[in-house]
Amino acid sequence: MTDSANASHQAFVAACRDAIGAAHVLTDAHDTASYLTDWRGRYNGAACAVLRPANTQEVASVVRLAVEHRVALVPQGGNTGLAGGATPDTSGAQAVVSLGRLNRVRALDPHNNTITVEAGVILADVQTRAQEADRLFPLSLAAEGSCTIGGNLATNAGGTGVLRYGNARELCLGLEVVTPQGEIWDGLRGLRKDNTGYDLRDLFIGAEGTLGIITAAVMKLHPQPAARVTALAALESPHAALDFLSLTQRFTGPLLTGFELMSEFCLRLVGKHFPQLRYPFDAPHGQIVLLELSDSESEAHARAIFERLMETALDEGLVADAVVAENLAQSRAFWDLREHIPLAQAEEGLNIKHDIAVPISRIGAFIDETDAAIALAIPGVRMVTFGHLGDGNLHYNVQAPEGGDARAFLAQHQTPINRIVYDSVHKHGGSISAEHGLGQLKIDEAAHYKSPVEVRLMQAVKAALDPLGLMNPGKVLR
Amino acid sequence: MTDSANASHQAFVAACRDAIGAAHVLTDAHDTASYLTDWRGRYNGAACAVLRPANTQEVASVVRLAVEHRVALVPQGGNTGLAGGATPDTSGAQAVVSLGRLNRVRALDPHNNTITVEAGVILADVQTRAQEADRLFPLSLAAEGSCTIGGNLATNAGGTGVLRYGNARELCLGLEVVTPQGEIWDGLRGLRKDNTGYDLRDLFIGAEGTLGIITAAVMKLHPQPAARVTALAALESPHAALDFLSLTQRFTGPLLTGFELMSEFCLRLVGKHFPQLRYPFDAPHGQIVLLELSDSESEAHARAIFERLMETALDEGLVADAVVAENLAQSRAFWDLREHIPLAQAEEGLNIKHDIAVPISRIGAFIDETDAAIALAIPGVRMVTFGHLGDGNLHYNVQAPEGGDARAFLAQHQTPINRIVYDSVHKHGGSISAEHGLGQLKIDEAAHYKSPVEVRLMQAVKAALDPLGLMNPGKVLR
Repeated sequence: MTDSANASHQAFVAACRDAIGAAHVLTDAHDTASYLTDWRGRYNGAACAVLRPANTQEVASVVRLAVEHRVALVPQGGNTGLAGGATPDTSGAQAVVSLGRLNRVRALDPHNNTITVEAGVILADVQTRAQEADRLFPLSLAAEGSCTIGGNLATNAGGTGVLRYGNARELCLGLEVVTPQGEIWDGLRGLRKDNTGYDLRDLFIGAEGTLGIITAAVMKLHPQPAARVTALAALESPHAALDFLSLTQRFTGPLLTGFELMSEFCLRLVGKHFPQLRYPFDAPHGQIVLLELSDSESEAHARAIFERLMETALDEGLVADAVVAENLAQSRAFWDLREHIPLAQAEEGLNIKHDIAVPISRIGAFIDETDAAIALAIPGVRMVTFGHLGDGNLHYNVQAPEGGDARAFLAQHQTPINRIVYDSVHKHGGSISAEHGLGQLKIDEAAHYKSPVEVRLMQAVKAALDPLGLMNPGKVLR
Repeated sequence: MTDSANASHQAFVAACRDAIGAAHVLTDAHDTASYLTDWRGRYNGAACAVLRPANTQEVASVVRLAVEHRVALVPQGGNTGLAGGATPDTSGAQAVVSLGRLNRVRALDPHNNTITVEAGVILADVQTRAQEADRLFPLSLAAEGSCTIGGNLATNAGGTGVLRYGNARELCLGLEVVTPQGEIWDGLRGLRKDNTGYDLRDLFIGAEGTLGIITAAVMKLHPQPAARVTALAALESPHAALDFLSLTQRFTGPLLTGFELMSEFCLRLVGKHFPQLRYPFDAPHGQIVLLELSDSESEAHARAIFERLMETALDEGLVADAVVAENLAQSRAFWDLREHIPLAQAEEGLNIKHDIAVPISRIGAFIDETDAAIALAIPGVRMVTFGHLGDGNLHYNVQAPEGGDARAFLAQHQTPINRIVYDSVHKHGGSISAEHGLGQLKIDEAAHYKSPVEVRLMQAVKAALDPLGLMNPGKVLR
């Protein structure tokens, strides 16, 4: 920074101390460290201060001071993002705005099936509060113990309940946002229908803090299901899994809440590193599907649906083998297999990760073509393919050949493999970031694949709402 | 128009003839009449031409010519709107762009559960095409035989399937839009998850053609339910109906696709003007609820759920009487009662209509307070209250006192009654336009109730995307 820029930042920090209290303006390296690095340690930034406002009014004050002193702001929730969206750059000129102290549940309305929460409320706490009111808040993902609802909305988080309940976007009815001018937009509506102008809500959702700071939200609740039952089906290929998905949807309608694909290799990795998790079938199969029903009647009813479905699928030769969980413990054990895949691949060594989506009908062709292209480029490479097949969303990860040096493999092959994968995604009409956002990680990749028209529309919106470019610069858009 | 403005418009019309063919540039009063008046005959406009481009490229050409000649455009679908959003002003300086010739179904992907349609495809035709592929397209509303999917999206149409399937917005995965610069944005993605930047799709949906012209869309399909069964429940008050809704959701989970409230007076009006439609209970009751289940198993299964629900509701004293349809004909007859309410009130004479939404939990208080305020202001007035209770959306209509002159009543009382109703809606955190949009009808009312911050945000978006103000001016925003 130049001296005058530095003086301006010092003045900003001093004014923030007056506005939100010195105790909540962190500048000591020991205090700020955890805010300046993402949880995986992939992004390291610096900041003139970490600001911890107590409420929406204080967030607005901080933004007005940032405008006055021309200081860029990086909003941060639970700091669990996977794309570096909440980490400041390395200049030291930006300030982090942590929403952690905005952690009140403002209201829960069981008749309206809504909960109004501040941005800093932990996702698991929203789930718990809903459950206490005999309601379900269905957003669920690995980081739920530490991620916040504000971050979930800023990145339009997905997770395991999307098939029935949608992404964070579909679960949100209204927002409160501090605009880049430091004004408070009260859009905290709890309405299922409202056609009175532009959809500002959905503009802020998924914008990763580049258009304003989400301070509170009205989220949808659902009835608690009476029972959740899982099942596993073994089949030979992703193509067969697609046919099985169509059959399943016909049998289960909206009761289906999970349809997760796991390749044989994923389960072999789980078995290798977590031998206590038993492979569920007698013989190996190309692909395993985990299904979950959320039933409003009973466990017995859900099991009966599953049994009819599996009988038909076996008769039609769509699946080779199947097992329906007999109790809660077995349902849990099936999910354990799925949830240990990320852990098992980490045990096996670093790999090249892709969070992609394609139209569900293209999943088979995408996997066939992309697997072949990668195998041709780097013989012996091992594909760790699993994910939310019902949403068309795959975690399509590329592991070094058996016994290879993972770090050297990444250094050498990450860029060409990304190109193969993303070109294939693009060819199949897909998305290079299905549920993790762009952050700073995929900003250039997104610009590469988006049309100039779309980039111009996004830039026009950004310039209109944040003309000074102070809201999370260097994220989403250059 | 001034002479120079007139010359510019003549040049525009001539250039359009070259661009899309003279046969599709209508200027003769006989040819243009039906495009210049809304179907209810409430709005009458004029136009320098009605343009009927054949495809997206021709729409883009027309928009580029409009930019060159500074001519304002009014996009129009089936011309079935209720707020005058598709009618030009009276200056004769605007041109209507009818999307009727963009009427191809471009693709239907049963595995992805999507259909890709052009803006001018009639809603009922989308439903039919889905059905032929053993899929359900759940958007359904009274005008479905003539409204178009482009208009449905531009106004974010609601209708009777919103409770389970959402509004037009929630049924749309991707759009193709001609921007105000005459560029084509290809956002025709068929993805359930895509987090790669700003949500442009939802910005265009509900913008009523003021930010660009929707030319095609990817819409979601659902599995066809195995059976639909309806039931009627009689109860004493809207408050009781709310408790009954919570109980119903617990019993039915996501199978519930309809929960419609009808006041006793609504059914009395139906009986008066359509005596062949039998009142379904032996005694009169304050409120009647129509319920619909869409079941993926069987009619018998749906009936069994209804019977368990009604038994519990009767035991708990929540409902006074109930009847479950025994066959398709009876299900149809129950819906007939609901669908004849708008016809019966029309037979009774003009009334003052409101398409409002409040949080579902506020429905009872809203009706009590607003009924009382109106009765105090105009004794003898008759309330025609019915609608989509499960969405918090009421058609809250005010009929002249028995035997009064409806036209005189409207002239005298429309403005003060609107104020009473909308003030009450605003107090309860509701929306003054739940599913009909703002058009030209409610543009000032919306500005009156929206915060200055929200109006400024909307204006900033409009100025950024349409700096010349040529896209449907005088609608949504001043």
